[in-house]
Amino acid sequence: MSQPFVAILMGSDSDLPAMQVTFKVLQSFGITYEVRIHSAHRTPEATHDYVTGAEQRGCQAFICAAGLAAHLAGAVSAITIRPVIGVPMEGGPLKGQDALLSTVMMPGGIPVATVAIGSAGAKNAAYLAAQIMAVSDAALAQKLRDEREENKRKILARNEEVQKELGLA
Amino acid sequence: MSQPFVAILMGSDSDLPAMQVTFKVLQSFGITYEVRIHSAHRTPEATHDYVTGAEQRGCQAFICAAGLAAHLAGAVSAITIRPVIGVPMEGGPLKGQDALLSTVMMPGGIPVATVAIGSAGAKNAAYLAAQIMAVSDAALAQKLRDEREENKRKILARNEEVQKELGLA
Amino acid sequence: MSQPFVAILMGSDSDLPAMQVTFKVLQSFGITYEVRIHSAHRTPEATHDYVTGAEQRGCQAFICAAGLAAHLAGAVSAITIRPVIGVPMEGGPLKGQDALLSTVMMPGGIPVATVAIGSAGAKNAAYLAAQIMAVSDAALAQKLRDEREENKRKILARNEEVQKELGLA
Amino acid sequence: MSQPFVAILMGSDSDLPAMQVTFKVLQSFGITYEVRIHSAHRTPEATHDYVTGAEQRGCQAFICAAGLAAHLAGAVSAITIRPVIGVPMEGGPLKGQDALLSTVMMPGGIPVATVAIGSAGAKNAAYLAAQIMAVSDAALAQKLRDEREENKRKILARNEEVQKELGLA
Amino acid sequence: MSQPFVAILMGSDSDLPAMQVTFKVLQSFGITYEVRIHSAHRTPEATHDYVTGAEQRGCQAFICAAGLAAHLAGAVSAITIRPVIGVPMEGGPLKGQDALLSTVMMPGGIPVATVAIGSAGAKNAAYLAAQIMAVSDAALAQKLRDEREENKRKILARNEEVQKELGLA
Amino acid sequence: MSQPFVAILMGSDSDLPAMQVTFKVLQSFGITYEVRIHSAHRTPEATHDYVTGAEQRGCQAFICAAGLAAHLAGAVSAITIRPVIGVPMEGGPLKGQDALLSTVMMPGGIPVATVAIGSAGAKNAAYLAAQIMAVSDAALAQKLRDEREENKRKILARNEEVQKELGLA
Amino acid sequence: MSQPFVAILMGSDSDLPAMQVTFKVLQSFGITYEVRIHSAHRTPEATHDYVTGAEQRGCQAFICAAGLAAHLAGAVSAITIRPVIGVPMEGGPLKGQDALLSTVMMPGGIPVATVAIGSAGAKNAAYLAAQIMAVSDAALAQKLRDEREENKRKILARNEEVQKELGLA
Amino acid sequence: MSQPFVAILMGSDSDLPAMQVTFKVLQSFGITYEVRIHSAHRTPEATHDYVTGAEQRGCQAFICAAGLAAHLAGAVSAITIRPVIGVPMEGGPLKGQDALLSTVMMPGGIPVATVAIGSAGAKNAAYLAAQIMAVSDAALAQKLRDEREENKRKILARNEEVQKELGLA
Repeated sequence: MSQPFVAILMGSDSDLPAMQVTFKVLQSFGITYEVRIHSAHRTPEATHDYVTGAEQRGCQAFICAAGLAAHLAGAVSAITIRPVIGVPMEGGPLKGQDALLSTVMMPGGIPVATVAIGSAGAKNAAYLAAQIMAVSDAALAQKLRDEREENKRKILARNEEVQKELGLA
Repeated sequence: MSQPFVAILMGSDSDLPAMQVTFKVLQSFGITYEVRIHSAHRTPEATHDYVTGAEQRGCQAFICAAGLAAHLAGAVSAITIRPVIGVPMEGGPLKGQDALLSTVMMPGGIPVATVAIGSAGAKNAAYLAAQIMAVSDAALAQKLRDEREENKRKILARNEEVQKELGLA
Repeated sequence: MSQPFVAILMGSDSDLPAMQVTFKVLQSFGITYEVRIHSAHRTPEATHDYVTGAEQRGCQAFICAAGLAAHLAGAVSAITIRPVIGVPMEGGPLKGQDALLSTVMMPGGIPVATVAIGSAGAKNAAYLAAQIMAVSDAALAQKLRDEREENKRKILARNEEVQKELGLA
Repeated sequence: MSQPFVAILMGSDSDLPAMQVTFKVLQSFGITYEVRIHSAHRTPEATHDYVTGAEQRGCQAFICAAGLAAHLAGAVSAITIRPVIGVPMEGGPLKGQDALLSTVMMPGGIPVATVAIGSAGAKNAAYLAAQIMAVSDAALAQKLRDEREENKRKILARNEEVQKELGLA
Repeated sequence: MSQPFVAILMGSDSDLPAMQVTFKVLQSFGITYEVRIHSAHRTPEATHDYVTGAEQRGCQAFICAAGLAAHLAGAVSAITIRPVIGVPMEGGPLKGQDALLSTVMMPGGIPVATVAIGSAGAKNAAYLAAQIMAVSDAALAQKLRDEREENKRKILARNEEVQKELGLA
Repeated sequence: MSQPFVAILMGSDSDLPAMQVTFKVLQSFGITYEVRIHSAHRTPEATHDYVTGAEQRGCQAFICAAGLAAHLAGAVSAITIRPVIGVPMEGGPLKGQDALLSTVMMPGGIPVATVAIGSAGAKNAAYLAAQIMAVSDAALAQKLRDEREENKRKILARNEEVQKELGLA
Repeated sequence: MSQPFVAILMGSDSDLPAMQVTFKVLQSFGITYEVRIHSAHRTPEATHDYVTGAEQRGCQAFICAAGLAAHLAGAVSAITIRPVIGVPMEGGPLKGQDALLSTVMMPGGIPVATVAIGSAGAKNAAYLAAQIMAVSDAALAQKLRDEREENKRKILARNEEVQKELGLA
Repeated sequence: MSQPFVAILMGSDSDLPAMQVTFKVLQSFGITYEVRIHSAHRTPEATHDYVTGAEQRGCQAFICAAGLAAHLAGAVSAITIRPVIGVPMEGGPLKGQDALLSTVMMPGGIPVATVAIGSAGAKNAAYLAAQIMAVSDAALAQKLRDEREENKRKILARNEEVQKELGLA
């Protein structure tokens, strides 16, 4: 089996810009990832083959980004027993409310770990994948704890700056 | 090729009671139909095999009923180029609003002909299937026109009765 | 009876730009279509006359695009027993949520085959009309199957390109 | 021309129980009314004939009650230039949210005076019709003013009782 | 008593641009109108005094435009027994959904004739006021009928043009 | 000036059962309160007189409960500069979503401190009133702190019991 | 104990521009305030320490601004028995509807005084804090009454100007 | 470190009945779990201590069930870097729509793996926790695969039965 990795699937290459932040967070933790443009509806066989193969090659979590009636995460979850994270895309007239419900309201037995619509969700999909991998990777778990501390320090520092900017310090 | 027919798929047998009205309307027009309990997520291969076979055997329209994150109609539409009618089931905490959006907001290229949530939709799925078959079946088209006239007569007769019941006639 | 065709009705000429994609898809399949600006409320007689005549002249499916309290598709469905496809327009403060519910929640007996709000729906209305016509037109059915294969090839090719763009290949 | 009256139309006789309160309020003001079960979609010609005739016979306001994709009020407004009051019925899985949007979001030129979903709306439809008739009927206007005073007295009396019931007086 | 007129109230002068279309439609029918910037919450006494006086001076309908938690139409309806038309303004983060519910869901006894959110509603408020006045003004009723015919002609003419523009004629 | 107190207003006596929990929490803190059935629309003068008088007699916070297009809290806030707490009632077809938006989306300058729809809100209205009074009442502040500790103890004790009930302890 | 003051907490410094109007209103009433960038999730200890200390130093009301799944106001309310005002931020794909529900639907015992989404709410948070402080500060209460009168005068003056601008005076 | 386990937290013991299905699914896979009644707001210190301790004792995933403004999952995610699964409870007037948005719309950096509202979500929370543990537990992974096959067999068998029940076989 190859090195553990995360597989990121998107229904369309129009989702690539929104998912850059996912790539960036995974990179910051040194996590290997693959990216595929596969549609639940237009390339079902390719999706099936890729997901089955990825599970066998050591994929530890799937991240699926789709908009509108977003079936991709559910379709992938039906193929694999690895955790599947669904990111509802913000596009379209309903601003991702359709994608959220299509992703999160899965019937019992085929779970999708759903995160927020849009950029907050794209970011958290990477954090969640990292947390899942860190369950059995103590070094990665430590990186997650360190990043939290670093993040805390940044907010507190920013808080100090704001006092000065507002002339309240 | 066998006689033209309609194929009705449901994600769960808990959808059977709500779909009785579909069966009844199809029967009233003398339309042959098949019923299958197949899940987009739990029995994807069986769904695929059935849909492919049904198309070859002369299925002219598919009716797919599902609730929550209702992917069944979209999944079937991805397999066949026959018209697929989606019925969003009313169950669950969101009363079918999730099923409606999961069914109707399909991305371009894979259409689902969506009808109303719940019993009105279950009824209209049968009418719509009959209309699709009637495009190339003049006798069925005439039955549809006759049923409309009959329906009109019933409403007008009921209107007359109501005048008397309200003491307004 | 003339050649089979699709009739496209719009409540206002402001819907024309959004419906260009519908024309384009129908053209790609070599399907004849007519376009009318007719309002369910402002030109009810003209709508009635056109729909009745179109059915007699061989119209096999109607596509109705309207926004806000979108009654057009339902009003047309009340006139004809040919399948009526409703496209909820995205305009207005509610972004088509009003048009979606006004189109899809039809009472039993008068069905409207509803597609997605906005451009995805405008595209799928054409695909759905083509599928309805293809039930009795084997050559058109083959075109629909070919287009799906072509579409699949394009997504898989794009997937390959993306690997290179991301430096992951 | 006959005596001024209000015409009440319902899409189905299942709406009759909810509309009893409308009848009762009109009766309390001594207003003549007619009731018809007519469907915008199933009996369009009967609806058209009735509305045209009612306008000629002295109908001063129409009240239209319908549920789901409620097109009745809009369809009646397209036929007459008398004020049309729309009452969204509460039934169905969306509890009248669909009926509200289908009734109130009318495009420019064909207005519907929309009231609340359900029983509050059924009551206010009668009050609104009475107010419209009272514009040119001073005696009716006085009845409306008297009823408000009477109503005020009742609430204030109830307020006094509640003090005693709560042991706060 | 002076000449019949319509009174238009707005919660803020920021609503003036959206209400220009209301003024324009009223002018096209030769209807006299008054405009006031009065807030249900910030100038309750001035609102009360104006509405009471306007009713006495011959106001036949009130049009109230407000956004967010739009209480203006309800507050005016509590003061007068003349018909009150509520226009939910589109502004704010919820795009007028809050204003719609705050305006239309009035409890029994104090009706508000609610029209669509935003520009369609602003236009229809004027049509509805004209219809209310036309109940007792046969000349105005004729103007409303003529305008509908004129409007119908315009749509049919536009339909002809579109045939040429699309190269379908 | 009399003893500080809380004034509770309800649009209708049908709201009394839902507000019992408000009375009970206020009693538990030994806070004096008054209850009035006053409607923003049906008894505007009585509402005005009561609120003005209550402010002068030492009312430190108003609690206003109303459903549907709930204008009561906003109308009271327009009369007084004491804090006004709005409780959206759960009744009606929209389950209080209308009351929530009508209460919380107040325009700038006339605030309403809005709490949750229904029973959680009815309870928290009392806690919030107590907190407001406790700003200048150290004994009441201590009671609030004690109640929190007591509450915490109850939850922790219940947690212990649950361990046993589940057989996990 | 120091001078009474208001403590304003924000989940992120990206909320600072939207909260300028809060600062401005507090300044106009001469109210002392502090501003902190503290996150319920990223700096929980710092939030806890600040809130506990602020209560001891004389903070009379907390204003908490947060977007998306806005937990900040609830988390602060869990720490202090001083009144906590929640301002749902408008950002994100759902335009603050998520922040509104996350802020207002608090379970019994831990109240949050919620104001409108966005700028109207940011303004009213300051007014509400001022009203809470004014319960025990007669001079501040008078300032609030004066500001209302001044505001009324401005609207009435603007109303006069509008008459001239519209050529209706 | 002790044996790997799942920690289930609930905001109130009223959530226990809804979570029985979670316990049952975990038991079916032989997964050890703990249950705690802890509130994000009422017992924050106990929640903090338990979560910190559980992570140290080998907890591999947290499941947090809460309703209304459901902050529990987010608050737990802020304490631990183990995956946190949020189950929005169906209770309350908004039927869990508030709990869904409060749980899923988490800001970047503090992820919550959200599942469906109500019973489908309670079931899938257990499946998702099992999948997370199975990433590093091949035997558990096999159990998950076997359960899927068993489930598939059941649906196919039920499909056969339905054929007979409907008299279609």
